[in-house]
Amino acid sequence: MTKQKDRWNTRVKRENPDRSLEDLNWASPEGIPISPLYTSDDLVGLSHLESTPGEPPFVRGPRSTMYVGRAWTIRQYAGFSTAEESNVFYKKALSSGQQGISVAFDLATHRGYDSDHERVEGDVGKAGVAIDSVEDMKILFKDIPLDKISVSMTMNGAVIPILASFIVAAEEQGVSQELLSGTIQNDILKEFMVRNTYIYPPEPSMRIVGDIIEYTSINMPRFNSISISGYHMQEAGANLVQELAFTLADGKEYVSSAINRGMDVDAFAGRLSFFFAIGMNFFMEVAKLRAARLLWHRIMVEFNPKNQNSLVLRTHCQTSGVSLQEQDPYNNIVRTAYEAMSAVLGGTQSLHTNSFDEAMALPTAFSSRIARNTQLILQNETKVTKVIDPLAGSYYVEKLTSEIAEEAWKLILEIDELGGMTKAVAAGMPKLKIEEAAATRQALVDQGEEVIVGVNKYKLEKQDGVDILEVDNVAVRESQILRINKVKNSRKPLECQAALGELEQAAFSGKDNLLSLAIVAARARATVGEISMAMENSFGRHSAEIRTLSGVYGAAYDGDKDFEEIQKSVKEFAQKEGRRPRMMVVKMGQDGHDRGAKVIATAFADIGFDIDVGPLFQTPKEAAQAAIDNDVHIVGISSQAAGHKTLAPKLVEALRLAGASEIIVICGGVIPQKDYKFLYDRGVSAIFGPGTNIPDAARNIIDMIRKSKENPLNSK
Amino acid sequence: MTKQKDRWNTRVKRENPDRSLEDLNWASPEGIPISPLYTSDDLVGLSHLESTPGEPPFVRGPRSTMYVGRAWTIRQYAGFSTAEESNVFYKKALSSGQQGISVAFDLATHRGYDSDHERVEGDVGKAGVAIDSVEDMKILFKDIPLDKISVSMTMNGAVIPILASFIVAAEEQGVSQELLSGTIQNDILKEFMVRNTYIYPPEPSMRIVGDIIEYTSINMPRFNSISISGYHMQEAGANLVQELAFTLADGKEYVSSAINRGMDVDAFAGRLSFFFAIGMNFFMEVAKLRAARLLWHRIMVEFNPKNQNSLVLRTHCQTSGVSLQEQDPYNNIVRTAYEAMSAVLGGTQSLHTNSFDEAMALPTAFSSRIARNTQLILQNETKVTKVIDPLAGSYYVEKLTSEIAEEAWKLILEIDELGGMTKAVAAGMPKLKIEEAAATRQALVDQGEEVIVGVNKYKLEKQDGVDILEVDNVAVRESQILRINKVKNSRKPLECQAALGELEQAAFSGKDNLLSLAIVAARARATVGEISMAMENSFGRHSAEIRTLSGVYGAAYDGDKDFEEIQKSVKEFAQKEGRRPRMMVVKMGQDGHDRGAKVIATAFADIGFDIDVGPLFQTPKEAAQAAIDNDVHIVGISSQAAGHKTLAPKLVEALRLAGASEIIVICGGVIPQKDYKFLYDRGVSAIFGPGTNIPDAARNIIDMIRKSKENPLNSK
Repeated sequence: MTKQKDRWNTRVKRENPDRSLEDLNWASPEGIPISPLYTSDDLVGLSHLESTPGEPPFVRGPRSTMYVGRAWTIRQYAGFSTAEESNVFYKKALSSGQQGISVAFDLATHRGYDSDHERVEGDVGKAGVAIDSVEDMKILFKDIPLDKISVSMTMNGAVIPILASFIVAAEEQGVSQELLSGTIQNDILKEFMVRNTYIYPPEPSMRIVGDIIEYTSINMPRFNSISISGYHMQEAGANLVQELAFTLADGKEYVSSAINRGMDVDAFAGRLSFFFAIGMNFFMEVAKLRAARLLWHRIMVEFNPKNQNSLVLRTHCQTSGVSLQEQDPYNNIVRTAYEAMSAVLGGTQSLHTNSFDEAMALPTAFSSRIARNTQLILQNETKVTKVIDPLAGSYYVEKLTSEIAEEAWKLILEIDELGGMTKAVAAGMPKLKIEEAAATRQALVDQGEEVIVGVNKYKLEKQDGVDILEVDNVAVRESQILRINKVKNSRKPLECQAALGELEQAAFSGKDNLLSLAIVAARARATVGEISMAMENSFGRHSAEIRTLSGVYGAAYDGDKDFEEIQKSVKEFAQKEGRRPRMMVVKMGQDGHDRGAKVIATAFADIGFDIDVGPLFQTPKEAAQAAIDNDVHIVGISSQAAGHKTLAPKLVEALRLAGASEIIVICGGVIPQKDYKFLYDRGVSAIFGPGTNIPDAARNIIDMIRKSKENPLNSK
Repeated sequence: MTKQKDRWNTRVKRENPDRSLEDLNWASPEGIPISPLYTSDDLVGLSHLESTPGEPPFVRGPRSTMYVGRAWTIRQYAGFSTAEESNVFYKKALSSGQQGISVAFDLATHRGYDSDHERVEGDVGKAGVAIDSVEDMKILFKDIPLDKISVSMTMNGAVIPILASFIVAAEEQGVSQELLSGTIQNDILKEFMVRNTYIYPPEPSMRIVGDIIEYTSINMPRFNSISISGYHMQEAGANLVQELAFTLADGKEYVSSAINRGMDVDAFAGRLSFFFAIGMNFFMEVAKLRAARLLWHRIMVEFNPKNQNSLVLRTHCQTSGVSLQEQDPYNNIVRTAYEAMSAVLGGTQSLHTNSFDEAMALPTAFSSRIARNTQLILQNETKVTKVIDPLAGSYYVEKLTSEIAEEAWKLILEIDELGGMTKAVAAGMPKLKIEEAAATRQALVDQGEEVIVGVNKYKLEKQDGVDILEVDNVAVRESQILRINKVKNSRKPLECQAALGELEQAAFSGKDNLLSLAIVAARARATVGEISMAMENSFGRHSAEIRTLSGVYGAAYDGDKDFEEIQKSVKEFAQKEGRRPRMMVVKMGQDGHDRGAKVIATAFADIGFDIDVGPLFQTPKEAAQAAIDNDVHIVGISSQAAGHKTLAPKLVEALRLAGASEIIVICGGVIPQKDYKFLYDRGVSAIFGPGTNIPDAARNIIDMIRKSKENPLNSK
């Protein structure tokens, strides 16, 4: 105990005789103990304090002048519907202050399916733009000078056909590949952990990552070969130490893997980039970004690079999607503003700010303008860009930087002990830890320990309507199919077949660079789906094992009367019916965002339900069959990617055709209020939006099952 | 130069061989030089670093536990229309998370006029709630437990009748005055500087301040007797050093004055409170609040108090109104969010967050909810309340705290040399300095040096409509007049007259406490206007001398081609017409916010116009007569308090009746778009909203005068 803290403690005890000093401490979700008071004594022994911006270990920033030289790049992630519509959107954004493009692809594209594939009926053009070939890519960037505007592409599964099509589209616009600047996400490890837009099994997937790193290091000097992403981990429920550790461990794995295939570390390390989420824990997020640079330096030093640039972590950030709420959605403008400030005080190199309506749908022109303006106001009006790393020296922030770094380091060492991230992923360790954190947090929210304004406290009696963007995916799909057919009819079939054949052969042999060969195929107008399939023929398609967690959610309710009440009513149901209420949680279409599904599964299991979790990427027919096979009372569709209007009615219909109308269908996830009636009219019995209290939902569901049993004719 | 800075400088020079290091510095509007890099060496010699929260000089916070013990109070300033409507609004806000009431009174009340007075036709119920008597006050707080909910009242002019009516209303609700908690603004000095809601001349006004401090110190132990306010200074254009220095100098003057009338410093000093604006300069605002506590301690130590509480500055803050923009108004949610964060990181005790539509009108239920939620999110979701003074130790923030304190201290010493604030105000020093800062800033904005998103950069092609609140002031006035008559008809006239007579006598004699006597009068149902008039009979009504500044705005344009072009066209006009274009800037009704009028006057004078500035508080008839007497081409109405729909048409009509229809009438200030047509239809020729570029406006105005001269019949 120090002199300052001694004085303070004595005074606080005197002023609050009835209160324990312990009450003033807070344990962050990461388990980091936060004291009410930090003083200069907290700085003792922090060696990183000696460095300046642009100097190892880069805590104060990757570059010497930071925003005083040039502010971060405003890079908004966007894409929807067709290439034509997205192109108009990009050009408008660039003329309104945006400084780089970041492409959101639809889930069909992510998973390597052309728009005409039967498995993507609900997905085309929905959560991003549909891109099937070079022709779409050329339309996407029409009148956008690709030698001047940098392009970030969030693509991991179909990374080979998409990057190939991008390179060919640029080439045919007169911009050769060495002039292209931007980033491709190309971070497959985290897909196996959380986001699930993988295509091939881990091993060939890692080869693809390496091929891209190799190809770009030789041919595309201005292009970042990978964007190692923690974003989706935080979205999936990871705490910030987990996000930090797993992301850096992923990065370490990519570096090792590239070195193992014979590359020189300095040939690629300077063009690795990172991508973090920025949530609502203001100072923790600042500290996380500072700690990220500290630790990456520590990791990279081990590889003995000669170029200092190889030691530097540069990052893109995006404000947290999961922190946004459907309820009272204008509050999200405030949340995003605070998150953006955190990212900037942490020293990000580029930033996406979410639109306030993204908890409900894709952003409108209005909401995306406010999101962009948030950054413009931050850059132009708040003056925070005038000083580099303005929080440096803050007792709290410096101490927190060190603590979050050391906590993450422990986790990184754990992964090292498992033999690196590929093995840790195969063992399911990170995924399970993240799901545990997600379930714990959900319980805190449901209990009201974690307050979310407008959701579990300060609720509106009645929600205002908000205009949201709707994509007509049926029309988009039809127009995409027309264009695919046009491409296929006008190309030289032999040339295309030959290129695809070579690619398939290379996938099989393990020789040659897959990207290099895919570029040839893209020039010959092979589609994204065809290029993808050529490799799938050799690699196979990955299917994940579904594991669920138990006990984590329920543990948070230990001793809670209300919770025991619900558990009791589930038991009563079981006694009366001879079995427990049984629910299958399903994900249909190409939507791999399964945090919601996993949390629901864990929580309902802890409440006492029998829970089945269907495999990812089911068709409605497959989901219906699985529900029947498992003899469930209820199917819960978890939808995050706007496919619900297509997929939910098809599931209801498939159940009916199979004579299983008694199975109740409910929906949860991101579903706009205005779609509720549409779904109810088509046989969906209940819809649970974001912010639903799970014990409340469980009560409702038991009632629904009871009522449907009492009067089966009324159930639909 | 230090070792860290040496290394950094060397590296930056090497990395940017073509750029001067000087380019990286920034001079803040306060003239404080901001370096790109701060290091631990910037902390050398800062003695305030040794203290802990709750310990002199209180830089780290006035209380030991700060928000870790209890978060700041969410106190939203509100009031409009009638007492009934405002009461409903307050109760709704309290049930939705607001924690204290802050009453906005209408300008008629501020200036001590009952609603039936002829000078307040455009003002009743507009910029706040109309309160004419105890009966209104009782309705205002109906079903609000005044022994539990603290009430802040922004009242300076009619402070005696309002506080008296509040005390009597509480008493008749069964809450005796010793239980009342809250604050009355009671800060008359800044009214003479910037806000202009004074009634009496400075000397009797200072007596009133003292009477209230004395009365509350004896009878109302939980009530803050004064809220010394810098808010309106920043709103009027003061930079942060000016706001800080003038506010503290005001405070010092009140303390001296109370001591001079024989009070013990410890009897009142612990219940002085402060009120600051929080604008967009994020870290400067944090530093300002920390510096404010530092300097107030330095000031108060001189008065040798025995109680440590007497040394502590506690403050309310409000996000900046003047930073809000009419253009793309949802941006204001973002601005307010950042300002609120600044206030909190600076350690405010309570906070008002502005609604995003306040640049246009009074807030709606929707906009005020988002404003309140901004604070709820800050308190509940960002976790910034978990650590006391989290920026402590930051090299930049600590250095800035010290620098802003020392700059403000110089200004405080200047005021001391003038003999204190009453004398400085009489000499016009603070007002002139503030107006100079306002004009300088306006020039920077008009030139685009200071970027305001959506206003002078990143502009919308077309503004979206926003639903705004409109108060029907004619209806409010009629209902108020009915109630005044009812009060007057049901009271005991002799008792009331006697009480008013004693009050008038005490005002004249200088003996007895005016508040104490006003309470007796209020019990006898004397109205606010009558109590006010009883004192005016003795004190007289203050009329300010109007002074304008020249050269400041134009100086910023030195060498600017466009600006010289306009000046030239004004000269050509003068050569052709035999005299320069002449404009009178008028303020009508009880709206004393004259920053806009003063900036316009300065800027247009520098452009080459002949400018007259009318006295404050004119009726339309008086303004018309003055325009005719001065033979102006044009009258510019500056309206900030929503009286434009009543007052502007009356001015046009008065000019017409006087045969002066050739005088062009234009409007500027806070005027909602939807009122434009109403005003145009009634003879207003042009409307210039907030964010108008002044040189552009000048060009328009010269054209209008020319056209009207060429074709006088078309001018209306």
